[in-house]
Amino acid sequence: MTITFRHVIDSLTAGVSRPDPTVDKLDPGSRETEVQGIVTAFAASQYIIEQAAALGANLIVTHEGVYYSHQDQREWLGGDPVFLQKSALIASSGIGIYRFHDDVHRYTPDGITEGLICALGWQDYVTEHRAAVSILTIPSMSVKDAAEMVKRQLAISYVRVAGNLTASCTRVGILVGYRGGGSMTIPLFEQDGLDLIIAGEGPEWETPEYIKDAAAQGRNRALIMLGHAESEAPGMKLLAERLSQQFPGLPVRFVQDRPVFQIL
Amino acid sequence: MTITFRHVIDSLTAGVSRPDPTVDKLDPGSRETEVQGIVTAFAASQYIIEQAAALGANLIVTHEGVYYSHQDQREWLGGDPVFLQKSALIASSGIGIYRFHDDVHRYTPDGITEGLICALGWQDYVTEHRAAVSILTIPSMSVKDAAEMVKRQLAISYVRVAGNLTASCTRVGILVGYRGGGSMTIPLFEQDGLDLIIAGEGPEWETPEYIKDAAAQGRNRALIMLGHAESEAPGMKLLAERLSQQFPGLPVRFVQDRPVFQIL
Repeated sequence: MTITFRHVIDSLTAGVSRPDPTVDKLDPGSRETEVQGIVTAFAASQYIIEQAAALGANLIVTHEGVYYSHQDQREWLGGDPVFLQKSALIASSGIGIYRFHDDVHRYTPDGITEGLICALGWQDYVTEHRAAVSILTIPSMSVKDAAEMVKRQLAISYVRVAGNLTASCTRVGILVGYRGGGSMTIPLFEQDGLDLIIAGEGPEWETPEYIKDAAAQGRNRALIMLGHAESEAPGMKLLAERLSQQFPGLPVRFVQDRPVFQIL
Repeated sequence: MTITFRHVIDSLTAGVSRPDPTVDKLDPGSRETEVQGIVTAFAASQYIIEQAAALGANLIVTHEGVYYSHQDQREWLGGDPVFLQKSALIASSGIGIYRFHDDVHRYTPDGITEGLICALGWQDYVTEHRAAVSILTIPSMSVKDAAEMVKRQLAISYVRVAGNLTASCTRVGILVGYRGGGSMTIPLFEQDGLDLIIAGEGPEWETPEYIKDAAAQGRNRALIMLGHAESEAPGMKLLAERLSQQFPGLPVRFVQDRPVFQIL
């Protein structure tokens, strides 16, 4: 049987109650195109597109957008040469790009959060999955040891940590992507008795300033900020494994991008 | 002559065309209170309030809000113990807090950007001040050397850098606070021939992903992300110097807070 983009997209979105409007879309590409191979990635970056082409894949399933904008606004890119070169590469490659953001976050549990928890090896410690956060009860360890373990498991070179490093933590909230903002994180500490939040990204004047105040008051509340890509790439890796099982005849591969930042 | 909070606020806001609505406000406090001393800071954190009280200051001029929210939304803080303890400290201290955000950004040049440029020692290299960005032409140096110089001048322990570290840079855009987003930064590279942007904070999927693509295309465009507080605290230090000159009889002091994050 010929497998088209439509089959893959239908499989990805089966049973999901999609928000309206959504940022998820196939662009560029036609649903009737036959799939040669699939690459999943955090973002369809220049590097990922080049890798997909080299691997002979003609469908990229990307969590974040292609052009540095959640809503795919492009007006301000104008004649920017990075944009133009990337657009030309995509056009000449013939690769289709499916943005898969909203729907995977609406899996039960959230498919991106689940990927991160799997990568951490913490599946057995989940107390409760909610829409935007998973609550875990992990074996007691210091915040510093938790941070070092997270770095090792995710193979990342650094994390940003707020709070008292020597405090012990066992009740942990995990929030991927841009869910690190104060209105999402701060109520969890009290409501769920959390010691530690592990998040992707969020405004620095919100949760980190709250944690600084908590530490100044002698309270053991801590935050590990992983980085947006670092928190969500594992979910796209898990997705590649699922697609491989659903389409055993297709080459499906997660491609890990380079980190956006170096620490100096 | 008795100097009241009103005199200080009138001095801070003289000649500024204030946006409506604005987040700037005196809360708590009465404009008729006599000033005993002033502390300026990036944020009125637990630590800053304790320091102000210890210094005998009864007016804090803060750039960011007290309760981890730009719009000062407090509903979701509820009975949070960090919030309650901080509120009680503020009430018992009798200290007035003036949020000074929108107006100082509307100074000509932007008072926060000017403070950062002064702290970098780059006043002589300014080509143009605009509302949200200053364009500089600095002596040519590598991105790595620029990052090391910035760390040294600002006395900060790390910066996050995107792009090619060995590329040389001379055309630099400086954007403080949360002006690091793609719609603000990306057009500058082409329009102003920038090699490097130094910013406070911004969404990681915007400018950093753009810089990663630019580097993958072999282009020399780079980004140094300072951190929000790190980019704006120098502006509040400069403000303290100005207040000292305007009110020579008053003790005015900038207090440097601890960084929100450690790198592990």
